[in-house]
Amino acid sequence: MSYSPKEFRALTWHDATPAFSSGADSPRAYLERCLSTIAEREPVVRAWVTINETGAREAADASTLRWKAGRPLSPIDGMPVGIKDLLETRDMPTQMGCPAYQGNFPKRDNAAVWALREAGAVVLGKTVTTELGGAHPGPTTNPFNPAHTPGGSSSGSAAAVAARMVPVAIGSQVGGSIIRPASYCGNFALKPTQGAINRGERQATSMSTHGPHAGSAEDMWQVAIEIAKRAGGDPGRLGLFGPSTLPEPRKPATLAVMEAEGWALLDGPSREGFERLVEALRAQGVVVLRRGDHALLDAFEDSLQGVQAMTNAITGWENHWNIRNLIASMGPDAVSDRTKNVLAGAEKMTPEDYRVAILRREELRLRHAALAPFVDALIAPASPGPAPVWAGDVPGQPLVRRPTGDAVYNVPSSGLGAPVVTVPLMAVGGLPVGVQLMGQPHADAAMTAIAHWMTEAIAPVEA
Amino acid sequence: MSYSPKEFRALTWHDATPAFSSGADSPRAYLERCLSTIAEREPVVRAWVTINETGAREAADASTLRWKAGRPLSPIDGMPVGIKDLLETRDMPTQMGCPAYQGNFPKRDNAAVWALREAGAVVLGKTVTTELGGAHPGPTTNPFNPAHTPGGSSSGSAAAVAARMVPVAIGSQVGGSIIRPASYCGNFALKPTQGAINRGERQATSMSTHGPHAGSAEDMWQVAIEIAKRAGGDPGRLGLFGPSTLPEPRKPATLAVMEAEGWALLDGPSREGFERLVEALRAQGVVVLRRGDHALLDAFEDSLQGVQAMTNAITGWENHWNIRNLIASMGPDAVSDRTKNVLAGAEKMTPEDYRVAILRREELRLRHAALAPFVDALIAPASPGPAPVWAGDVPGQPLVRRPTGDAVYNVPSSGLGAPVVTVPLMAVGGLPVGVQLMGQPHADAAMTAIAHWMTEAIAPVEA
Repeated sequence: MSYSPKEFRALTWHDATPAFSSGADSPRAYLERCLSTIAEREPVVRAWVTINETGAREAADASTLRWKAGRPLSPIDGMPVGIKDLLETRDMPTQMGCPAYQGNFPKRDNAAVWALREAGAVVLGKTVTTELGGAHPGPTTNPFNPAHTPGGSSSGSAAAVAARMVPVAIGSQVGGSIIRPASYCGNFALKPTQGAINRGERQATSMSTHGPHAGSAEDMWQVAIEIAKRAGGDPGRLGLFGPSTLPEPRKPATLAVMEAEGWALLDGPSREGFERLVEALRAQGVVVLRRGDHALLDAFEDSLQGVQAMTNAITGWENHWNIRNLIASMGPDAVSDRTKNVLAGAEKMTPEDYRVAILRREELRLRHAALAPFVDALIAPASPGPAPVWAGDVPGQPLVRRPTGDAVYNVPSSGLGAPVVTVPLMAVGGLPVGVQLMGQPHADAAMTAIAHWMTEAIAPVEA
Repeated sequence: MSYSPKEFRALTWHDATPAFSSGADSPRAYLERCLSTIAEREPVVRAWVTINETGAREAADASTLRWKAGRPLSPIDGMPVGIKDLLETRDMPTQMGCPAYQGNFPKRDNAAVWALREAGAVVLGKTVTTELGGAHPGPTTNPFNPAHTPGGSSSGSAAAVAARMVPVAIGSQVGGSIIRPASYCGNFALKPTQGAINRGERQATSMSTHGPHAGSAEDMWQVAIEIAKRAGGDPGRLGLFGPSTLPEPRKPATLAVMEAEGWALLDGPSREGFERLVEALRAQGVVVLRRGDHALLDAFEDSLQGVQAMTNAITGWENHWNIRNLIASMGPDAVSDRTKNVLAGAEKMTPEDYRVAILRREELRLRHAALAPFVDALIAPASPGPAPVWAGDVPGQPLVRRPTGDAVYNVPSSGLGAPVVTVPLMAVGGLPVGVQLMGQPHADAAMTAIAHWMTEAIAPVEA
């Protein structure tokens, strides 16, 4: 199962639909292929919490009729999609990987789920999330090596796409939960501009976003724009901007490498692979700025020092009342010890500490905005190396600190509210490592266009 | 039951607590007095959906012990509080005045409810809301004349305070749902700066706020600041600023009358009463600017034309997916015909229409900010007259358009995200009409300080 970006063929949807009109293929047949793959791989990958086979077949049959009649509701009509089990679904429980939510079944759809159904997509099932989207892992394994984590918190969504079970699955990110698992699983993924895709009932933290993991840039963008067309962005936000299909390839004039706090943690082969990519970009005539090349880039990098602690503090404080609430309602076993540790840290903060962190985040955003006139995108590894081994906590020992890997390369975009597209362009030691493109707020389509160009112009590297 | 602001004595808490330490009075005895008033008046006022007498008595007894031991959790320890039935409570259903939510019982507390319990307050019951906080009314009547509406959507919270059932009840406002019912019911009320009091799970619209209705400025402020100390503001916002007890009285140097779209709708006696208040302010040496006195004030007033349609459009679009969601999950009877009419309007909008409305709202905020250097607060009636008669819809006739009154004087602060304090300083035809003070974002404490000064320096008027 060793991963090679040159050889791996992801599951795609956009190129399957032409056969739906002729009847040579159908959404129902596509779904059955997905279910076969799930039957084969789920015992080891463990990406799913719930699968609604009956509902999915009904929805796929209805879609099949629409395609045959030449009236699909959208280009994703009939697409089987996985939904991270943090988002509400009206036909399946929403259990959030958390004891407090066992059996929770609100019988309503999250805004993105509602929009996907409006576009005709087949909501196949709920994918494993870490507890409440935090650090405590679920059972999912990395599809390219089950000894390794798939990343988190969107563990199941990332793994289901990488295992070719579905062409797209919805993830969410507060710290690093879309970008990092996409990196570890070799997916395309969009972490949208803060607020660009409506989070529905999940507005409780200021840095969370919902975005697609996909086997192709086409499907990634199509799902994002179909959701935004119907459910818009978060209340008060302008929503996702961009074309109705995958943006045309765009070669950037200038990229800048973002070292951030992750550079020092990057393993040798990953760094070597990334440097080869930089050279390949330069060979195509792209200017790639590095630390030291521009005072404003250095000022930005300086402000990224400490960003992981800052974003963790902000999110911890935003979540503290609700975790206390769960414990007050359901008792001390409502959440795991790992989540209780995070709570204990958050409860050392005061409202004034939180305000200072928010102001610090605004300063970071100013320094990022200052790059806009001369940098088309920041580029960086999407994780500080391939997925680490995860063997479980050891009874009697302290809890392992980061069982789903380190979000160090993901927290900058979370703190900045900036869009990121992850592109599967590297393999390190037989596991994927993604490359991320980060833009100014609302440059989601521009990042996708650059990603599109890179997949055509830059050969993947293996290190 | 005719209302006179000079004679009406509201129920207060802050002046009851000194007797709790000595044992001359107790939170339990206070609660029993509230329950007696409820038993007496609820058959006509109909402010409550659910009352948790058992839970309230247990909480009051625990509070009684803390006060006797000299260790109250806060100045509001033991205070009986009503909670608008839009906010989740772990010990009572949350039914939102809506068929779709009959029996809805998520067993968790809203952030403000959680914070109130942390401060020792007694969560007595859930108060009537219009359907989903919209236009369709519940059964509550105006405590000063049951033929009239109490206002909405915080109908039950406003009426419960005015009927002396509780000293404080929590309301919420998206368009005019705190300020208008406070005006109609003779309450003090704080519509906080957008985001200043954490809305918990209720983040689905960009202009909603949670705030207290109270019989006194002391209790109003105390409840607001105790919530903010514990649960903070909305995620990403700086939260409520201000002192730990009621701000000291502050005489403003300059006020400006806000005419807005409501001025033309103001009935003669209400206008006469308001002009007498303006004269009383001038007699105290306060400069009161009027339309025509300053180009920036005129520019602000100009931008307020159309604000009601703009705010209604924004909120309608923000709610549309979820109302569709309820109907998709529960069938066409999930919501009332009145709410379906609002939905039909919202579904005529596109995401681009919504973006244009958001930009228009930003322009309004710029024009408000331009007043900051020379206006301490805007002052206006809190409603375009006293509570109107509400006799119900007539079968076979079109639905009555505004059964809980007109929000025309409340939508400016909603659109601006600006704090408002309502002060019960007028009676018109034997019913209350409030006066509102509106400030720049985060001037909640300053507005409360001016309100405090007005209650001491300005005699209420009867017109």
